[in-house]
Amino acid sequence: MNFTKIEHLGIAVKDLTEANALYEKLLGVPHYKTEEVLSEGVLTSFFKCGESKIELLAATNKESPIAKFIEKKGEGIHHIAFAVEDIESETERLKNEGFVVLNEVPKRGADNKLVVFLHPKSTNGVLVELCQEIK
Amino acid sequence: MNFTKIEHLGIAVKDLTEANALYEKLLGVPHYKTEEVLSEGVLTSFFKCGESKIELLAATNKESPIAKFIEKKGEGIHHIAFAVEDIESETERLKNEGFVVLNEVPKRGADNKLVVFLHPKSTNGVLVELCQEIK
Repeated sequence: MNFTKIEHLGIAVKDLTEANALYEKLLGVPHYKTEEVLSEGVLTSFFKCGESKIELLAATNKESPIAKFIEKKGEGIHHIAFAVEDIESETERLKNEGFVVLNEVPKRGADNKLVVFLHPKSTNGVLVELCQEIK
Repeated sequence: MNFTKIEHLGIAVKDLTEANALYEKLLGVPHYKTEEVLSEGVLTSFFKCGESKIELLAATNKESPIAKFIEKKGEGIHHIAFAVEDIESETERLKNEGFVVLNEVPKRGADNKLVVFLHPKSTNGVLVELCQEIK
């Protein structure tokens, strides 16, 4: 197995405060963290669920990929993130397998992670994120 | 915590054979099961990933919810399923919290589960499934 678990599921929302209240009721736990990712123009909040997390994402400006996603598709599931042990070798492996890598050099994501995205066109419409914990 | 884990993530695909080959490469594991759910008009296959699963869903007829989903939105993530210990009490709880329950009586899903769906309009555009293992 190349991916050790579903690290998190990202959900695009319009209003983070309202969505936080709703997902607290749904999941039955409060969110444990809020974090802004300036480079992506997003404000995120995280909920634990088993070994995985739910990440809510709200745009902080109109150029944010989340603003564009919501404009095009509406609120909903935005991406799935898998935990990997070695993001560089996994990125190389997937590139060689024919997957379209959006950023070959891992970038810093929320929650202390290095992240690489795969283009949805190579994965049946699913935006896939690889996540490696920064040690 | 009301939900013990992400039980699975459902992905709508056009061609199950092609998608199986692709997700085997992506996840690095073969699918361990194929199952038809006649009532939903779907053929499913399952992959393990940590404590969760990836479920690929292909329509077996034009009236299938998966055929309609793909027609409207294209291939991609269709639903998220959470594991619950007691599906009846969880359904009651969520109904009382204001979530819109699509089937109040749990129905039989794939992979030996009783399932209840929540309408995406009450959960920021996310189709949520509750899953309880049938003992």
